[in-house]
Formats: sequence, structure tokens, C-alpha cells
Amino acid sequence: MTHRADNQLFDAYFTAPAMREIFSDRGRLQGMLDFEAALARAEASAGLVPHTAVPAIEAACKAERYDAHALADAIATAGNSAIPLVKALGKVVASGVPEAERYVHLGATSQDAMDTGLVLQLRDALTLIEADLARLADSLARQALQHADTPLVGRTWLQHATPVTLGMKLAGVLGALTRHRQRLKELRPRLLCLQFGGASGSLAALGNKALPVAEALAEQLKLNLPEQPWHTQRDRLVEFASVLGLVAGSLGKFGRDISLLMQTEAGEVFEPSAPGKGGSSTMPHKRNPVGAAVLIGAATRVPGLLSTLFAAMPQEHERSLGLWHAEWETLPDICCLVSGALRQAQVIADGMQVDAERMRRNLDLTQGLVLAEAVSIVLAQRLGRDRAHHLLEQCCQRAVAEQRHLRAVLGDEAQISAELSGEELDRLLDPAHYLGQARVWVARAVAEHQQFIA
Amino acid sequence: MTHRADNQLFDAYFTAPAMREIFSDRGRLQGMLDFEAALARAEASAGLVPHTAVPAIEAACKAERYDAHALADAIATAGNSAIPLVKALGKVVASGVPEAERYVHLGATSQDAMDTGLVLQLRDALTLIEADLARLADSLARQALQHADTPLVGRTWLQHATPVTLGMKLAGVLGALTRHRQRLKELRPRLLCLQFGGASGSLAALGNKALPVAEALAEQLKLNLPEQPWHTQRDRLVEFASVLGLVAGSLGKFGRDISLLMQTEAGEVFEPSAPGKGGSSTMPHKRNPVGAAVLIGAATRVPGLLSTLFAAMPQEHERSLGLWHAEWETLPDICCLVSGALRQAQVIADGMQVDAERMRRNLDLTQGLVLAEAVSIVLAQRLGRDRAHHLLEQCCQRAVAEQRHLRAVLGDEAQISAELSGEELDRLLDPAHYLGQARVWVARAVAEHQQFIA
Amino acid sequence: MTHRADNQLFDAYFTAPAMREIFSDRGRLQGMLDFEAALARAEASAGLVPHTAVPAIEAACKAERYDAHALADAIATAGNSAIPLVKALGKVVASGVPEAERYVHLGATSQDAMDTGLVLQLRDALTLIEADLARLADSLARQALQHADTPLVGRTWLQHATPVTLGMKLAGVLGALTRHRQRLKELRPRLLCLQFGGASGSLAALGNKALPVAEALAEQLKLNLPEQPWHTQRDRLVEFASVLGLVAGSLGKFGRDISLLMQTEAGEVFEPSAPGKGGSSTMPHKRNPVGAAVLIGAATRVPGLLSTLFAAMPQEHERSLGLWHAEWETLPDICCLVSGALRQAQVIADGMQVDAERMRRNLDLTQGLVLAEAVSIVLAQRLGRDRAHHLLEQCCQRAVAEQRHLRAVLGDEAQISAELSGEELDRLLDPAHYLGQARVWVARAVAEHQQFIA
Amino acid sequence: MTHRADNQLFDAYFTAPAMREIFSDRGRLQGMLDFEAALARAEASAGLVPHTAVPAIEAACKAERYDAHALADAIATAGNSAIPLVKALGKVVASGVPEAERYVHLGATSQDAMDTGLVLQLRDALTLIEADLARLADSLARQALQHADTPLVGRTWLQHATPVTLGMKLAGVLGALTRHRQRLKELRPRLLCLQFGGASGSLAALGNKALPVAEALAEQLKLNLPEQPWHTQRDRLVEFASVLGLVAGSLGKFGRDISLLMQTEAGEVFEPSAPGKGGSSTMPHKRNPVGAAVLIGAATRVPGLLSTLFAAMPQEHERSLGLWHAEWETLPDICCLVSGALRQAQVIADGMQVDAERMRRNLDLTQGLVLAEAVSIVLAQRLGRDRAHHLLEQCCQRAVAEQRHLRAVLGDEAQISAELSGEELDRLLDPAHYLGQARVWVARAVAEHQQFIA
Repeated sequence: MTHRADNQLFDAYFTAPAMREIFSDRGRLQGMLDFEAALARAEASAGLVPHTAVPAIEAACKAERYDAHALADAIATAGNSAIPLVKALGKVVASGVPEAERYVHLGATSQDAMDTGLVLQLRDALTLIEADLARLADSLARQALQHADTPLVGRTWLQHATPVTLGMKLAGVLGALTRHRQRLKELRPRLLCLQFGGASGSLAALGNKALPVAEALAEQLKLNLPEQPWHTQRDRLVEFASVLGLVAGSLGKFGRDISLLMQTEAGEVFEPSAPGKGGSSTMPHKRNPVGAAVLIGAATRVPGLLSTLFAAMPQEHERSLGLWHAEWETLPDICCLVSGALRQAQVIADGMQVDAERMRRNLDLTQGLVLAEAVSIVLAQRLGRDRAHHLLEQCCQRAVAEQRHLRAVLGDEAQISAELSGEELDRLLDPAHYLGQARVWVARAVAEHQQFIA
Repeated sequence: MTHRADNQLFDAYFTAPAMREIFSDRGRLQGMLDFEAALARAEASAGLVPHTAVPAIEAACKAERYDAHALADAIATAGNSAIPLVKALGKVVASGVPEAERYVHLGATSQDAMDTGLVLQLRDALTLIEADLARLADSLARQALQHADTPLVGRTWLQHATPVTLGMKLAGVLGALTRHRQRLKELRPRLLCLQFGGASGSLAALGNKALPVAEALAEQLKLNLPEQPWHTQRDRLVEFASVLGLVAGSLGKFGRDISLLMQTEAGEVFEPSAPGKGGSSTMPHKRNPVGAAVLIGAATRVPGLLSTLFAAMPQEHERSLGLWHAEWETLPDICCLVSGALRQAQVIADGMQVDAERMRRNLDLTQGLVLAEAVSIVLAQRLGRDRAHHLLEQCCQRAVAEQRHLRAVLGDEAQISAELSGEELDRLLDPAHYLGQARVWVARAVAEHQQFIA
Repeated sequence: MTHRADNQLFDAYFTAPAMREIFSDRGRLQGMLDFEAALARAEASAGLVPHTAVPAIEAACKAERYDAHALADAIATAGNSAIPLVKALGKVVASGVPEAERYVHLGATSQDAMDTGLVLQLRDALTLIEADLARLADSLARQALQHADTPLVGRTWLQHATPVTLGMKLAGVLGALTRHRQRLKELRPRLLCLQFGGASGSLAALGNKALPVAEALAEQLKLNLPEQPWHTQRDRLVEFASVLGLVAGSLGKFGRDISLLMQTEAGEVFEPSAPGKGGSSTMPHKRNPVGAAVLIGAATRVPGLLSTLFAAMPQEHERSLGLWHAEWETLPDICCLVSGALRQAQVIADGMQVDAERMRRNLDLTQGLVLAEAVSIVLAQRLGRDRAHHLLEQCCQRAVAEQRHLRAVLGDEAQISAELSGEELDRLLDPAHYLGQARVWVARAVAEHQQFIA
Repeated sequence: MTHRADNQLFDAYFTAPAMREIFSDRGRLQGMLDFEAALARAEASAGLVPHTAVPAIEAACKAERYDAHALADAIATAGNSAIPLVKALGKVVASGVPEAERYVHLGATSQDAMDTGLVLQLRDALTLIEADLARLADSLARQALQHADTPLVGRTWLQHATPVTLGMKLAGVLGALTRHRQRLKELRPRLLCLQFGGASGSLAALGNKALPVAEALAEQLKLNLPEQPWHTQRDRLVEFASVLGLVAGSLGKFGRDISLLMQTEAGEVFEPSAPGKGGSSTMPHKRNPVGAAVLIGAATRVPGLLSTLFAAMPQEHERSLGLWHAEWETLPDICCLVSGALRQAQVIADGMQVDAERMRRNLDLTQGLVLAEAVSIVLAQRLGRDRAHHLLEQCCQRAVAEQRHLRAVLGDEAQISAELSGEELDRLLDPAHYLGQARVWVARAVAEHQQFIA
């Protein structure tokens, strides 16, 4: 047997353990075995298999009874994982109840077992991801509400712009998560479908029992019976992967923003610290964004993996070679990367450390310029838009040229102080008074979140 | 002004003209101008803009009034398309009604105009694609029903397997199209959303008129008002693109199968011929799959373009640089490629030439082996599964070794002729009697298609 | 410690064991440990580390002394693999020679260890792939020569065209392999470079010993000293990956052609058979292209993985977060997939079964039309080009319409038989006489192969 | 004729005009026509075409004589661009010298014209890119030398680390560009190869004149004669594209860094300003990185386009359908995007505005912590490494806790002031004295640049 060298050094960092459980050797085998056991029951209910054969088959359908290493070697000859597993299953069944062996895998094809087994794994994965998304959304909703009025500078093209609030930033992510949950809910019935077609998809080997068996099998596995087998119509799987890709993208945006806000020059929001986490003994100021790195990493890797799945869609005729194979590790990789990103996002969302004072100071880095718009608008109502705009522009340029605060320049400008008192100017240059709909956006995003019913 | 060299030699082949209209320079400009006109109306309704200023702005919001070449040059300096367009719009407005100029683009930011303009283009694109999908699905449904019982050999791993029917093959594509239409229907409300946030997304410049203006603007444009601006939450766009990617994948599978069936060695189905189409004067047998090439080409190109959109999702803070730019040509390219593939698929679906006689002959290429399963099943009921299986295996191997037809070998085998008469054997070796659920699958796929309500 | 579920069911099928050895947990750890040991020696040679400390450090630099599972968990907190490994290394050193601990990893940064360790792994991978390519090229050269004159039909757009030879087809792959070997040879000095820069890349912590240490370290590891550290200039790695991508593409083409030639309708070339390989007991004619599936699968997966590496190139400042992380599993995955494809290609190239008789028969599937060009050319010399062309066109159409062989139609056509005798016609319609430069191409490709010096 | 809507609004921003000239409709047509003219000359030299026919063919081989719109429509029917062009060429030739028409395109196939035409375009593109790279490298070398000693903070994981210099950062990009130039030089002979194989690649139609014609044709076009035609061996093209992808990645890194350094919070380096460029009248501090956006945009788009080219490599048999088509617009798009990125990079490299004073201030943002390492090393020589390290760690933590400058804390610490004078401490905490090999790296990168011979 081929020696298999371990290769999981980064698993704990990049993947949630529960997702790795689902997409493990054991998980794959059990998925296929669950199919085989349910098939025996379904065929027994249709009279194709004696009821007495079922327990022997069911008993043999436990992944722990199979040697994954030996199967791995056999896969290399057989070309897929179901052929050697069914062979091994037959042997196990035969060793218990010899006459039951002949009823193993009856009328099914390898891909029926592999695809349906995969769908069973994906059902667990979907449930996990939906729960993770719900928990993360709860956390973001809580933080968005808490920081609904915490002003920080808005940044466009990485340049300072008018203020926003931290709550509003977080609500943006929350809104995306709610949409992702909606998408997963919508695709669920399309994804969770039985695969069962036999050799070429016609189920001809089962004669007139085919449809009853298919219906019973779907019911056994609590899967939908699709309009027909989908051995070479892979849109169900790729759709799921692409929604995971959207999740990865949204989390990547979250991680990207966190990493930028954590920059030494910004210092506004931090990942929660933990002993040994991203630190440096000689550089105690250093707080490496260890979680954000996972979010960005996943958002960088998933698009390429996704493109593979899309590129693998034109599968030939009734069963493809090569394109189908390209899915086997790729789709699980996407699930695992997204699970890992969700886990890190949760840690950040729960424990983010906010330095509102630093946000205040950063808002003033341009010495009031980010609030020139606020003054301009009020002034326009009094002086007319053109004159107000022109005046402000001059003051801004003067502030930059003289390296003075815009408040001081405005206060010195007679045309302005004639219209606006010092108190009014102070207020206009206070970011807290120029937050627009920030609070409304938070409320709307949180409301959508709360109204979402899985 | 920079001279612009044309670059559209392959446009007519790869893109549907109607989609190219939508994603043309004119289409882009008009999208943004429609936003600006509607903004003026909405702000007038909220009392921010005098009603008298609106007609001048509306009159200026016609794409044909702008020089796309000059704007293209200005874009290279400004960094986006809205800044120079708004400047040009201001000039046009001012040339008519000078005092109206100040109300142009009031409180909006460049990305509001660009994104909302894009959404308006995408609405047209979506409508076009939905119509194309509906028409293609109708055609496939018709063909699937017509060929529901037309047997051809099933092919797995590109090897002959048990028979299927042409209707069943086509129904597979139909099923995928119906799911795509369902997906588009579900995403429509998420996609067709207003973008309106002002400088940093808070709409602060509009004070307490912000929400009423946003609502009126959405209503004017018949778009949904989203929970908040989405300048750096791009999942709405990428979701749409990914469903187009699924469409491209399904059509790629259709094209791949057609091209394989058209192989000189197979000769079972052909693209419709047309004067000069894919032909060769010295090789009159040659029928190049000119349409299938477009389907395969699109399915090869869209995955890479899609991966760009997914990779561009982590957009920084309130407005991104570079990642946003990466979308501008990529999303239109995807729409165009899919439109071109749909057009070619329609031509093929409508006019495919089917050689049922050749299918028959090809079914017999293995001299009956693809129907060994049918004999085995019947025999199993009489001789027991193991004995039947063993017997068939021997006969198959003998047929191969002796290069004889399986029917002849079976007829010569005493153990078999004791059980099955010559007529029974003839019937079992007739593909038309071993089509299983082919007809049921067609009926189910067509029923789903007919029940689909857009 | 986190339980780690195994996930290697498809490893034996998709990956060469020797490559998996290189890119295993052990391989990664040993790469970093080799760096640390060499660093101690280099620093001892420069007088920074006492010579007495070196043996203790060297002794500790054995991967088997470390618990990969425990390290995996620590990586999730630390954010990379070198931090916990260096910590563990320090403990092991200290447990032996306490005073040596302080000299571990002196002046280096985590990424120095990780990148240099990776380069050491890549050196092994490169050597392995070069050897595999050389062996595969030898085999293809042998087969190309052997089948230099074996005619089969040329196929363009999957339609029959004028004849080629199997040798010429194989020589095409051979030519590509020779170019890949040239590319690998050229990139080798760029790839096999030391990474050594310390905290920010300046090696400031080593003062004026920095350059001597760097030079000694490079020499110790037999790596080139690059012009400067390349922590965020990743072109060296991505170049290597992209040449592997070219290899995957060429092998994908090989696999695609084999799978098409193996089609039941073509039946011209087959993967070597082996017990249990891709077979089916009830369908003894079925020979699943189990190896070609791997070639096609790799060619489908590598492009997406590659796009990740390219997308991860814009790494920020002196050390990136997230983009760097995106490389860690992606580059090894590419190496492993290509190694697996090379292995399967070797099996096919060595043992391909060629049915020259079937090729002959397939050449005649169009009843001579694929050789009309040959007749036309000779006739043109006698009748003039236009008249010859017109005449042939008519005969071809007649042959198709009447379903007769072109030879018969030509023989019946007086204008032709006046010019060409029956023997001449027979000869012109013999594919073996219309192979053009096929033999020359083979000779040229084989010559390039033989002249290649690694 | 199909109306063609323009679609080039972003061309001037994203693409260099000279590259767009190359990859325009005219450029494509002229490439193919150059092939046809050279073919006539080559065949005349071999006696296949009368010398008198050549001038008529040459005269007709001017792109401006053809209607690109009409050809675009014909392409949609023919399935490629050479078929209708050759037909149109024939008509133009015939209209001049009727008897010359028969010698047009003699013995060639469409793909010969398209591929060789493409190679001629790529030769121009390669020359352009090599010149751009050389000019950009010159500029970066100049700037790297000028700023070889300009200290700024090193940043790892976006956190402040020990100092680097601006010259060293720029030298990193320079080093990558030199490697790219080396790569282009190496691939040039592989890329610039004639494509000439006739119908199936054997050149059989030219009989024993085939090789002489091929040699003469290659000489005419100053292209290499490859070992054999490469209609379905596409590695030459994809290799070139992948090196362009490396260029895009390196420029993306440059743009990413510039955009980060331009952040309002950093303010260290700026793109050159220009009237109307990335500015904002109400926010005069705002300097949008309009050029960096192009660099980042290209680095985001090229990977996806590249993955398409890699995915399109497994082209079937002697000529592919669909996969070949997928190249036609994709490879030009890559050339154009890279040309646009090079142009913007040149503008930035030439005119970057450096705020060395701000760099100084930013170096002190952590109040000396980024130089703790410098103190630690000197102290270690006097107190022993462990004691020195421990002492520094305490001082660093105290500095953070008390929000004091590390210099002050160190000065107050008796154990330290016993060893290091105030002057020594000042010096150690001066970034200019802790730049390590920065100057050496610059010198080495510049030397490699200067030694490069194209």
C-alpha cells in the first residue's frame, strides 16, 4: 500500500474542524455508505431486495469498517471512489450474510453513490455554514447597534472623506450576510437532491420499479427527487459553491477593512488579542492581524477554485471524465476555506477592540477638511450655492497652504463669520453632527437581519 | 484627443447585437444620465431643486449629446466615467438654462451615478437574458418531446454504455435552464437596487431630505431602495454574474455534446447548415460546428472573468480603488459572451438535424454489448443473479474475442436459449426496449418548464 | 489539541507519492529546519555564533522531533508556521545545550525560514519534475519514431480532415515537453534563491556581518544569493508555477486526445489495460480512460490555482498578510497535481495500445473524401487549377449524394480517367501517400529532444 | 450588416494607445495579410507561384482595403476571421489581376494565417513592452539611487516594523522588472515562430516544396521555423501571456504600495498631480491614486484572463473548436491591460512626490519602538543577550503603558544608562543608523539592471 504522507499543517488555521470532519476520508465514505444503505431499504420497500438482506447491508455501511488507505490505492486503478468501496462493501456484507451481497448497489452506478454521498455531506456543510452565518450576523448586528454613532473618517480611494460610523461600516457586512443567507435558503431545495440514474441515467435496470425506488430512496435520505438525474448537469453544485464564493468575498472585505484599520497609522479597530497571538516580544506595539489574514487568504483562494468548478461544467454526454474529477477536491476545499474564514470572522466580530478616541483624532488629521462639505451646505443656504462653494474652496486651500485647521481659517474669514457664529462653526466641524443616515442604515440592516427567517 | 482604434472584429460572432447595444459607450452614458435626470426630479419632489430646473437637466440627459471619445480621454485623468460626464452635463445644462447647472448631481457621488447607471443597464440585460432563456427552453422542450423516444447510445467516460434517448439528453439541458430562470427570478430584487449614498455613503449632504430623496429616486427609476448603499458590498453584481456563469456552463455542456455528436465518427446530430457556414468546398462532408465553438468558447472564458469579479469583492472602506475598476469591463464582457452563446444555442436548438438512423447504427457498434445488462436482468429472474451474471459475462467476452454479435453468441449458448426464445432475445437486444425512465425524465423536465412563471 | 480528520482519499490517484513526500508536513518542517541549521553554521563561520552551539542546533533540526499536530494548532494562533516551529526548536535545543538556544534563528524572520524552506522543497520538486519530463519525453520520442508512418485521419473541429500520422501527433506533445524543459532550465537560477532579510528585509540586526552571513548561508544551502530579499516580490515562485501550468496544459491536450481516440466510435489508441483498471464486467468493451481523466482533471484544476498565485502577487510593503497565506497550500497543490499527471502520462506513453487497422478503417469513413485534396493537386497540374478544383468538387458532392466511395465516382468520371489511371487513382486515395511532412516533423521534434541538455 | 455599437469608453484609461493600435481590427487584418503576401513571395521563390502574380497579391494585402464591419459579419458565419478575409482578398486580387487569384493562400489553412498574423502582432507587442519595461526600469533605478538612504518605516502585516529606505522598496520592483526582461528575452525565440501546416498540419498539399516554402516564408517574415506546426500546442502563446501576468503582478504590488503610502494617514509618497487629476475641489487634501487604480485593476483582471488561456490549452487533435476561439480576444486583452499598467507605472515612477519629512515623523509614530531591536543588539554585546533582551522588553512595555517615547524610558533606566550614553541612545534610535543592507540591495538591483542586455 502506498505510504501516505500527512499534509495538514495549515488545516487548523484555515479550516473549521467541524467542516474538516464533514470533508474527511471518513465523511466521504460515510456519505456513500449512507446512500448504499438507503438504497437497500428503498429497494426492499419496492420488493426488489428481500427485507432480510437489509440489516446485513446496513450493518456494513459504517465508514469505520473500511481502510481508507487501501481504498485510496484502489481508487487510483478504478478511477473513482465508489467502485472500490462498493467492492469492499460487498465483501463485508458477504462475510456476514453471503446471500445479501448480491443486493448491494443494485441498479445504481458509481456516480449515484458519489454524488448522493456528496450531497449528504453538503447538507451538513450547508447547515454548518448557515449556523455560522447566523451567529456572525447576530454579532455584527450587536456591534453595529453599539457603534451606530461612533464616528470615524470615511475613506474613499484610501483617502479621507466625510465621516461615517463604525456601525454603518459593520452594517454593510451584515447586509451582505443577510443576502447570503437568503441565497442559501433559496438554493437549498435545488442542491439537496438525490442522484440516482444507473448506468446511463435511465434507471433501465430497475424496470418499472425504477421510479418507486427513486422516490423511496429520496424519502429515506430526506432529499428531493429531481426532475431527472444530473450526472453531467452540475449547476446545483456550482451554484452552492458560488454563494460560498460570495461569502468569502464579503468576509474578505471585512478582513481587508480590519487590517487597514489596524494599521499602525490608523489604529482604530483591532482584532482581539490573545496570548501569543500575532505578537512580538521586541515590538510590543505590533498586533498582527492573524484572523484578517485568513479572511483575505480565503477571498484570494476561493475565486480560483470557483473558476475551476465553472470551467468543469461542460461535462460530456452521460458521464464525464476529467471534468468530474476536477470537482472532487475543489468543492470541499471551498467549503473548508469558507468555514475557516467564518470562524475567524466570528472571533473578530465578537472581540474587536475599538479605539473611538483614535478615530476622533484621525478624523481631524486633515484639520477639518473632511467637514468642509458640511459648512458649505449651510453657507449655501445663506449666501447662495456658488458663492458659498467658492468661499469654502478658498478657505480649504488656505488651510492646506498655511497648515492651519480649517476651523481657524473659517473663523478668520469675515464673510463666513458674518454668517456663522463660532458655536455654529464648532458644531459644523464636529463629525458627530455630520453622520447623515448612518443610524438609519444600521437600523435597516439590523431590521432585515431580524426579519430573516431561515 | 486620443485616436481610438476599433477592436470589434469578433463582436458579431461572440455577442448578441442587442446586448452589445446595452453595453456600448452610449448605453453606459445613458445609464448615468438616466440617474442624473431622475435625481433632479426626485430632488425637485423633495424641494431641494426648483421644479423649473428639472426640464433643462432632463433635456441634457441624452447620451447623443456627448462625445464619447472626448469623455474617454477625460476618464483617463479623472479615474472614472462619472466625473467627466457630470462636468460635461453641467456645461450642457448651463448652455441652456445657466441657473439650473448648480442642481446637477446634487448630493450624489460619482459611484452613485456609475453604479445606478450600471444597474439600469443590467436590468435590460437581465430582461434580455430571461427572454432568451425562455425561448431557448421552449425550443428544447419541443425537441425533447419530439425525440423523447429516439434512442441513441449512452456514453460515459466517452465509452458506449446503455442506451438513452435524444429527448432525455435535451431534457437535461432544459432542466438546467429552468433552474437558471428560477435563480434569475430570485436574484432580481437583490440586483435591481438603487445606489445612492453621496461622498461616503451617509447622504449627509442632503440632511433630513436624504431618505425622501432616496425613496423618490428609487421610485423614479423603478428600482428597489436597498437597506443601505453598497459601494463596497458588491455581492449583488457578482451574484448575477455567477448565475450567468452557470448559464455559460450549461450551454457549454450543450455545445460540447453537439460537437461530439457531430464528429465524423458519430454523425448523429448536426448544427443546422447555412450557406457558407462552417463548410469546405473540397471537403463536402465537413460541417464545422461553428455555433458549438461559441458555446464552448464562452464556457471557457466566463470562468476566468468570473474569478476576477469574485477576487475584486474585498473593496476597501467606503470606496475602492482598482478592485472597483476591475469590474467595469469584466461584468459587461460576461453579459455579452453569454448573450452570444444563447443566440447560437437557439440556432442549434431550433434547427438541429438529427440522424436517428445513424444513432441506431452506432448503438450497434459494440455488437450488442451495450444491451448485455438488459439480458442479464431478465435472466437473473430465471437463473438467479449470480449464474445469470456469470453466464452473460462469458458470452460478452466470447463476443469480443470472436468479433461476433452478442445476439448470435447468446443464441448459440444452450443455457440461454433454454430460457429465452429468439424473439425474446431480439427484443432484449433492441435498444428501444431498454430506455427506462427516459420518457419520464423528459415529461418531468418539460412539466417544470411549463410550470415556471417568470 | 485539535483532532485532525484525514483527507487524502484521492491522493494516490491524483498525486505522485514522491511529490507528496516533498509537500508533506514533514517536508515543510524539514525545509525550515534545514534553513535554521544552515543559518547557525553560516553565523558561526561569520563569528556571530560560537562553533560549539552549532551541533546542538543541527541535532535539533530533524523534522521527526516535532509534533506536526501540535504545531498545526500553534500556527492557528501565531499566523504562520515558522513562529511555533522556531519556538519548539528553541526548546529542543535548550533541552540539550541550554546556552545554544540563544543562537537559534538569529537575525532571521519567520518568512526567511518559510520561504527558504519552500525553495528547498521546490528544488526537490523541480528535480523530480525534470526527471519525469525527461522520461516522458524519451518515451514519446520512441513512440513517435515507431509510429512516424502510421496514418490516421487528421481531425479539425472534430471533423475528419486530411491524414496525419500518430507519430506526428505524439511529436507535437514531445515538442511542447522539450520547450517546458528549456523553460525550467532557464528559471532554475531565478527560483533557487535564498530568502534572508530579517525583520523588514534590511538584515540590520546583523550589522556588518549581514552580507557575509547571507553569502555563507546561500553557499551552505547551495542556493543563489538574490540581488535582495524578495519577501513581497513573488515572481520567482509564480513563474515556476506558471511553467507547471504549461506542463499541465500540454498533458491535458495529450489526455484529451487519448480520450477522444479511445472513444468507442474511434477505437484507435487505448490506455494500457491493467487488472481492474477502468473496466466493467458486464461491458467488456468498456475501457475507461482512467489515466486521461487525471490529465484532464489536472489541466482543469491548475489554471484556477494559478490564477490565485497571480492574484496574490501584489503583496503589501515588506511583508503581506493574506496574500502570502494564499500561496501556502496553492503552490504545493499545483506541484502535486502536475506530478500526478506526469505519472499517468508516463503510463499511457509507455503502454499505449495502437490499433493501426482501425485507424485505416476510420480514414475511409468518409469514403475517400479526406483525400480529395490529393487528387485535386495532381489534377491541377494537368487540367489547370480551376478546372481541376471544379471537377473534384462535383465528384465529392456526387459521392456524398450517392453514398459512394470517391474512388468509384472518380473512376466513372471520364474527364478524370482520361488523366489518371486506375492505379494512379488508387495511389492518390491511399492515405500513406499523402502524409506530407509528417516524418520530417517527427524527426525535427526528436532531434530537438535529443539535443536538449538539462 | 450588423450595426456595431462602440464600446471603448475606458480604453484611453486602461490601455496604451500604441498597444491598442496593434490589437485593433486593422492590426489583426494586417497581420493576416502580411502572412498572405509573404506566402505568395515564398511560393514564388519555390516555383509554386509565378513571380508575376506576386505584386497583385502584395498590393491587395493592405488592411485599409477591407471593410472590417462586413468581415465581422462574415466571421459569424464562417467561424473564424481568415476564411472571409481570404475570400475578400481573392476578390480584390481578381479585380486587379484575375489570373493571380488562384495563387492566394495556396496550401495554407485559416489557422496558419490567423496564428502567424497573431505572432506578427505579438512581435510588435513584445517590442513595445520590452521598451516600456526598459524605460520604467531606468526610472526606478534612478529613483532607487536617489532615495537609497531615505528612511521610512518598514511595514509587515501592515504594522510598523524596523526601518527600510524608499530606495530599497523601489529596488524591489526594479529587481522584478529585470527578471521579467530576462524572461521575455528567453521566450522570444520560442514565441516568434511561424505557423504553417496546411489543412491538418502536414503541408501535404505542397508536396516536396513544403519545407522550402516553409523556410522561405519564415525568412520572409523574419520568424523562426518551429520544429513543426503548433496549431494545438499553445504553450508558446500562453508562456508569453504568463510573463505578462508576472509583469501585471509586480506592477500591482507597486500600485498597491503607492496607494497605501498615499493614504491620508501615511502621506509619504504621492502620484504626481496634474490638473483635474484625482482631485476634489471641496476636499483639497484628496489626491486619488488614479494611476495606482489602473495598476491594481490590471493585476486583478489579468489572473482571470490568464486562467482562461491555461484552461484553453487542451485543444483537440489537429485543430480545436471553442478552446482556440477562447484565445482570440483574451490574449489581446492581457497585452492591452499590461500596456496600460506600464504607462501608468511610468508616470508614477517618473513623477512620484516623496515626503521624506512625513516618513521621518511616521517612523516615530510608535515612539521609538521600531528601533528597540537596534538597542537590544548593542546592549546584548555588553550585558549578554538574555539580560539585554529582557531589559528591552520591559522598557518597551513601559513605554507603551505610559505612552512615553522609548528614548525617554531607556534614558530613565539605570541599567541601560550605565551602558549607553545619551548620545549613543540618540544614535541607536535614529532610523538612519539602522538601515542595514538597504544601500547594498539598491546597488545590487541597479547593477543587475545595468548589466541586462536585451
